[in-house]
Amino acid sequence: MSSQKLACIILAAGKGTRMKSALPKVLHKVAGRSMVGHVLAAARSLSPDDIVVVVGPGMEAVSAAVSPARTVLQPDQLGTGHAAKAARTPLADFSGDILILYGDTPLITAETLRGLVETRRSAGAALAVLGMRPEVPGAYGRLLVTDGRLDRIVEAADATPEQRAVGLCNGGIMAVDGALLFGLLDRLTASNAKGEYYLTDIVALANADGRVCIAVEGSAEEVIGVNSRAELAEVERLLQGRLRRAAMAEGVTLIDPESVWFSADTKIERDVVVGPHVWFGPGVSIGEGTEIFSFCHFEGVAIGKGARVGPFARMRPGARIGDGAHIGNFVEVKNANVEAGAKANHLTYIGDARVGAGANIGAGTITVNYDGFGKYRTDIGAGAFIGSNSSLVAPVSIGDNANVGAGSVVTEDVPADALAIARGRQRTMPDRARTWRLRKAAEKAAKAAGGT
Amino acid sequence: MSSQKLACIILAAGKGTRMKSALPKVLHKVAGRSMVGHVLAAARSLSPDDIVVVVGPGMEAVSAAVSPARTVLQPDQLGTGHAAKAARTPLADFSGDILILYGDTPLITAETLRGLVETRRSAGAALAVLGMRPEVPGAYGRLLVTDGRLDRIVEAADATPEQRAVGLCNGGIMAVDGALLFGLLDRLTASNAKGEYYLTDIVALANADGRVCIAVEGSAEEVIGVNSRAELAEVERLLQGRLRRAAMAEGVTLIDPESVWFSADTKIERDVVVGPHVWFGPGVSIGEGTEIFSFCHFEGVAIGKGARVGPFARMRPGARIGDGAHIGNFVEVKNANVEAGAKANHLTYIGDARVGAGANIGAGTITVNYDGFGKYRTDIGAGAFIGSNSSLVAPVSIGDNANVGAGSVVTEDVPADALAIARGRQRTMPDRARTWRLRKAAEKAAKAAGGT
Amino acid sequence: MSSQKLACIILAAGKGTRMKSALPKVLHKVAGRSMVGHVLAAARSLSPDDIVVVVGPGMEAVSAAVSPARTVLQPDQLGTGHAAKAARTPLADFSGDILILYGDTPLITAETLRGLVETRRSAGAALAVLGMRPEVPGAYGRLLVTDGRLDRIVEAADATPEQRAVGLCNGGIMAVDGALLFGLLDRLTASNAKGEYYLTDIVALANADGRVCIAVEGSAEEVIGVNSRAELAEVERLLQGRLRRAAMAEGVTLIDPESVWFSADTKIERDVVVGPHVWFGPGVSIGEGTEIFSFCHFEGVAIGKGARVGPFARMRPGARIGDGAHIGNFVEVKNANVEAGAKANHLTYIGDARVGAGANIGAGTITVNYDGFGKYRTDIGAGAFIGSNSSLVAPVSIGDNANVGAGSVVTEDVPADALAIARGRQRTMPDRARTWRLRKAAEKAAKAAGGT
Repeated sequence: MSSQKLACIILAAGKGTRMKSALPKVLHKVAGRSMVGHVLAAARSLSPDDIVVVVGPGMEAVSAAVSPARTVLQPDQLGTGHAAKAARTPLADFSGDILILYGDTPLITAETLRGLVETRRSAGAALAVLGMRPEVPGAYGRLLVTDGRLDRIVEAADATPEQRAVGLCNGGIMAVDGALLFGLLDRLTASNAKGEYYLTDIVALANADGRVCIAVEGSAEEVIGVNSRAELAEVERLLQGRLRRAAMAEGVTLIDPESVWFSADTKIERDVVVGPHVWFGPGVSIGEGTEIFSFCHFEGVAIGKGARVGPFARMRPGARIGDGAHIGNFVEVKNANVEAGAKANHLTYIGDARVGAGANIGAGTITVNYDGFGKYRTDIGAGAFIGSNSSLVAPVSIGDNANVGAGSVVTEDVPADALAIARGRQRTMPDRARTWRLRKAAEKAAKAAGGT
Repeated sequence: MSSQKLACIILAAGKGTRMKSALPKVLHKVAGRSMVGHVLAAARSLSPDDIVVVVGPGMEAVSAAVSPARTVLQPDQLGTGHAAKAARTPLADFSGDILILYGDTPLITAETLRGLVETRRSAGAALAVLGMRPEVPGAYGRLLVTDGRLDRIVEAADATPEQRAVGLCNGGIMAVDGALLFGLLDRLTASNAKGEYYLTDIVALANADGRVCIAVEGSAEEVIGVNSRAELAEVERLLQGRLRRAAMAEGVTLIDPESVWFSADTKIERDVVVGPHVWFGPGVSIGEGTEIFSFCHFEGVAIGKGARVGPFARMRPGARIGDGAHIGNFVEVKNANVEAGAKANHLTYIGDARVGAGANIGAGTITVNYDGFGKYRTDIGAGAFIGSNSSLVAPVSIGDNANVGAGSVVTEDVPADALAIARGRQRTMPDRARTWRLRKAAEKAAKAAGGT
Repeated sequence: MSSQKLACIILAAGKGTRMKSALPKVLHKVAGRSMVGHVLAAARSLSPDDIVVVVGPGMEAVSAAVSPARTVLQPDQLGTGHAAKAARTPLADFSGDILILYGDTPLITAETLRGLVETRRSAGAALAVLGMRPEVPGAYGRLLVTDGRLDRIVEAADATPEQRAVGLCNGGIMAVDGALLFGLLDRLTASNAKGEYYLTDIVALANADGRVCIAVEGSAEEVIGVNSRAELAEVERLLQGRLRRAAMAEGVTLIDPESVWFSADTKIERDVVVGPHVWFGPGVSIGEGTEIFSFCHFEGVAIGKGARVGPFARMRPGARIGDGAHIGNFVEVKNANVEAGAKANHLTYIGDARVGAGANIGAGTITVNYDGFGKYRTDIGAGAFIGSNSSLVAPVSIGDNANVGAGSVVTEDVPADALAIARGRQRTMPDRARTWRLRKAAEKAAKAAGGT
């Protein structure tokens, strides 16, 4: 970007009634991030000098979510032009370009925004509107361009048949010369069917002043706005498609791409193989050559190289899985460091723990990390062997190369190289199963006969 | 519906040879309900005075499934006209309209049936045939309509090129004046290539009598018939699409709609978020604002508001999950009431039990509800804390705010506020893991050297 | 096939740079089998007398994978003609037909190959090229056919507009008279833009000799080559479609076909119902009438008739599940024989074991099969009842109809009809949970006040 200053206004005050939600529309998530979060991320890639988010009444949650970006209240919903005007006070001291964005278009990319801003600057235009050619132009406003100049934007409802035949439609996003924006907004009127102030009308006003406006054509997909849960699902689908294609292009095998769900920040190295039906929540990284089997659920976990995880593994925030480690089926790891080459292959819960390099955690092992009041840590040394169905009652440590017998409830520390056993002794009572069975069968028969 | 009487005949005697199944075709399920069950549900929405299901030999399972609707046997499969005639005896005393349906068209809706019946009545026609315009008319019979009157239905094989060019096809379903139906059926002949009695031929017969027949156009999707497993899967896909769109329209977020499977009776309130890969079997309801994470499997469970369930949770019939309760990964709940705010987050089986409000069930807890003869109940009081890896041997009760130590096998009741511990005491043997390891390694080396 | 001899050359030396993988391209898997493995399987269906796989430097893993087929090294990658020539030495003593295949086209079928070879023979042609008509011919070489004779193959880049309009494209695979092949290959030149020896040029050379060449049209899908992970996923999708349709045609219900993943060798009998989201790895067979619920992961397991498996079941290699057995949620079975009618319904690991007919394995049971050095077997007799949360420390045997009490750690054999209990005794301490709670709350409050 040139050295000229840039501010972004993100319009996010829409109620989103069709979402039928208690949550403000722009906070609904796509690929693990709120819609307005995606727009903010794209805006921030341009390193703007200021960002102002326009919110409606009762949207404190939006203000919290977009922080440190500032928010300004639009008390009444009187149209996009009215919403943009709400940013006048916070931008009173700003001088430079202003980019107007929408909080419900999460597919917009930084590249498109950069192109729009730069094209306006190099053209010396009063404003540049992002245009697009949707497959069905339908109800979109049409961009009327003559000799490279955007004369005005006409709503589909007001368009003549010739104007409706124009394929170039209004994508909504605009880059405007900041010295002109608020003056133009002041001159908007609400003399239309809906009685709203339309941002689009500043194009005609600027033209009336003899200023040059331009249209910059972009992709229709990027400006899709979300107004219902079905549209949210569609935008999610499109974004997942981008993320899947990007992963495959980098050398990741997705056996069934359509069934793998990514977050916007998922990082996967080459030669990782991901089976069908895997969920990558926020904050996940996977090292080269690791195999992820089907039915895994990840959030906030860093997995090393050459590891094997799943099927049916759940990695929760704070988990770290070392190079070459194995995490098997029905295993949960939370806030725990499973070091290189360690194995936890079956039916295990590892929480608030370290599992040392090369340690083996038997099937059914539980780190007992919670007593109803606090969380406590379990420390398992390198090369330790924890017998199946053991309970490790934290805080507790198992030394390097120590063994714990199967079925033990370990409440005291076990030194390195020691063996701990904590379980009952076996009593075997001959014939007792048979006599018990006969008695139960007789009882059952008596009950059936008695008719209870 | 008007006060005129209505009977439904559902033709369900088809063998369905291409299904390659021991199960009668109409009992194969779509969205958790048999195909004939869907047709019955649509028929029952019209509150008919009688329903007769025509079945073939050996289809006692169909009779059982459709009860209390009556069934009548069609001993030989001699065509749709012959099948409809089988309903004459059970409907001998019936006077009113007759609606003829097919047991293998599960996508038919009550709205369409109601429209067909009402249009016939208001038109005063002898019969009304449901028409449709499939994308590829191909082998469907064509409806030949002149001046609003349906003259006859011509089989595709017998049609002239002009007739084949007709897009309006026979959807099969008919509403017929009951005073005429069986008289018309008696006059059918089997003088065609297949030697069958075609129900469609009553149109020409009625016309020959000077009576008015009409066609009522409906959706091609609703009359899709199922003759193979591939068609069953296609009908399932279409019905799931309906159910998913309906859920989203009501304010439910489906992150990946295509991977969420509903039953016809699933009830979900607004602001529920459903992750990818979730199965809703029959009898499920989910309260407002509850989060359902990926990889959950539900049947017969009522989940309250603001709860968190999954990933990897299995809720079985008779489970009730209270408001704000948490059910975590690898947890199964069956015939149990988990009250408000209770938590069972990891690797647990809760069966035939109550878990009181706010109780905490540790990882690996099992309610031991079965002894090979009977099932017994576990009662866990409000605020109780069950240590990890515990076994609660039912019948047993844990009082309010009682604690059970980790790894305990509880066989006796625990009073309120008491602590129960039932496990072995820890013995720690210094250096024993090391010496054992050395011995095992030596044995292994000796074995390898010995060549066994 | 006629009695004439046949050799196959499979070209597999391509580097596959766009895969971004440390693994040779042809070893990437589709439907659980390497790509070159699929090509080999198709080739082997023709019972050829010899197969030679041409590999590049450093592809020892390919040689190992295709064994016992022989491999020959193509030291430099100088084009397909150069690659085919590398097979001259291993085929020096061979006399008969030669079929030239590609290791990265896993969708090719035996039927197509057989048709190509037989058509060449019956036509007495020097060679036959497999042609195809892709939807977008684009960059494919065009087959120029006049009066039934294939004159030459022209690269798209070198084609005239008229030639580009030809829809019949080069599918790559060729059947060649072995007496001519290497002589033709010797005359290839690398006088083209890429400086490579093109196999396709032997068509023009043979024509120049007055010999007849022909094109045999096949399906475009079968010759899709894989050069990127995205293409790998696409080929996987197409092959899965074939496998799913074949299963449904045989009488298997796939509730959601798109979410069920098969291996090329999966065997499923009729009236099996497979829920959504199921993974069939290599070596799986499922008997008639068995129900497979959602979220199952199978490899190397034989499941009998009328069994019920899942949801959330993982069957690993060496598992055998008998007729009518039940395997429930969060259950793993590995190298174990679960006999007819046995049940393991919840949270269990059965490894290196036998579970006798009709035995019942309680929730949370673990066979403790590994001590860090060796694997040991657990033998559970018919009709035995294993209490929940038990650990069976192998080697150990539980006799027929014996019982094990819940929560036991069994280290010694249990005779038939005996009862074994191996757990701690319960101590219940009145009021101790309450006083403990008060103390913890006071500590917490003190800590909060102290500010640490």
